[in-house]
Amino acid sequence: MHVLLVYAHPEPRSLNGSLKDFTVQRLERAGHVVQVSDLYAMHWKAALDAADNTASQPGVRFDASLNSKQAFESGTQSADIAREQDKLRWADAVIMQFPLWWFSMPAILKGWVERVYAYGFAYGVGEHSDTHWGDRYGEGTLAGKRAMLVVTTGGWESHYAPRGINGPIDEILFPIQHGILFYPGFDVLPPHVIYRTGKIDETGFEQVCEALGQRLDSLWTTAPIPFRRQNTGDYNIPALTLRSEVAPDRNGFGIHLMHD
Amino acid sequence: MHVLLVYAHPEPRSLNGSLKDFTVQRLERAGHVVQVSDLYAMHWKAALDAADNTASQPGVRFDASLNSKQAFESGTQSADIAREQDKLRWADAVIMQFPLWWFSMPAILKGWVERVYAYGFAYGVGEHSDTHWGDRYGEGTLAGKRAMLVVTTGGWESHYAPRGINGPIDEILFPIQHGILFYPGFDVLPPHVIYRTGKIDETGFEQVCEALGQRLDSLWTTAPIPFRRQNTGDYNIPALTLRSEVAPDRNGFGIHLMHD
Repeated sequence: MHVLLVYAHPEPRSLNGSLKDFTVQRLERAGHVVQVSDLYAMHWKAALDAADNTASQPGVRFDASLNSKQAFESGTQSADIAREQDKLRWADAVIMQFPLWWFSMPAILKGWVERVYAYGFAYGVGEHSDTHWGDRYGEGTLAGKRAMLVVTTGGWESHYAPRGINGPIDEILFPIQHGILFYPGFDVLPPHVIYRTGKIDETGFEQVCEALGQRLDSLWTTAPIPFRRQNTGDYNIPALTLRSEVAPDRNGFGIHLMHD
Repeated sequence: MHVLLVYAHPEPRSLNGSLKDFTVQRLERAGHVVQVSDLYAMHWKAALDAADNTASQPGVRFDASLNSKQAFESGTQSADIAREQDKLRWADAVIMQFPLWWFSMPAILKGWVERVYAYGFAYGVGEHSDTHWGDRYGEGTLAGKRAMLVVTTGGWESHYAPRGINGPIDEILFPIQHGILFYPGFDVLPPHVIYRTGKIDETGFEQVCEALGQRLDSLWTTAPIPFRRQNTGDYNIPALTLRSEVAPDRNGFGIHLMHD
């Protein structure tokens, strides 16, 4: 199978760097083909702007969606963007690996999402009608592919527990897992989170690799997070609120999972 | 009063650009002094790296927290970072204005947070003991100042409602409002969110300005979001889980608000 690892850490000799190398090796030894988008090493341009469309006319008012749509349709996207889209098309599974900085992904990775997720590629896909509000949240260009987050944090696991002060890790990651990965069609696997990274010694590192290795070995068999699909009857269209008889009298991120 | 507007949009002639100009004018007419950090216009460097410490030695393994700590303590931070910290010290209130891109702030603004929020400035502040786990979540360098998000989105309000498919807007913004603003000490006001921006005509724009203007006029009197403080007894230390008798049998972002 083909695996794309989108990786965001500035230091190759860091824990993240070691885990990236481990991941590539583990997957290759299992017979998979791996490509790595090492965003810091690539000097990835983080800020979305008019230059992302090589046909942008100077002086014309810049509209992010329209500019992206025109560039995607006419083949005038910046080459770095088109290359990453090709990698996504090629991949059977995508792993995003990053340190949790201020409760989200590093800016350089956010900028990868913003620029690579073009209009017509990751959003603005499919028809809109009374029963179908675009190919998104379970449908879309990246449907049939799997995605998983590998996240490191210096904080303790209890700080990210259901009653932890930072908020539950699943809620912190919801905008990424649901809003960035499930949205264009990925089946999203449960995240692999590594806590308290400052305290990992050599023995700890072996344990961390062992646990990550098991997740990589089961990349094709792990059950995805059961997010509800948008266009199969659970939601009112076009309000896109969950129908009142589904998870009645409840609110919040959790109601968008089928077993919750 | 002094207001810092941290603003992230690439097009001055956009709705966001117009609202930025409106905000400056409204606040200045009320007698306040305003500084704007217009991140795109400033060509803000989004990616945190070793160059953020001008004393970084080539070849030395880069550790983000340690590098930030050393630079902050020894006055060797990159000049753009030090300038933004000075603006934060100067400000009585900070407004962050941005379009919601993929359910979070634009990469360029995330990179502002990552680089300006130095160790010793926004985190790693204060002592750790059995009753006090650093000056954070309600205490810290920025305590006594107010902060507010002004957010635009193309999506409908119902899509961000308590049962909307994107998740409730307050949960989407929790990692920013609680994790980025409350963490270093800000009193965080309820966000001002402007929906369905693609459908705003001239009349709509006047209404949008009127509503935003009211929020700006009441910047000093609006009650902050009642996030629980870390070090006043609600949390177990060092696990930092909410004590079992507080909001018993409940989980999630909402339990970190006092009235919830």
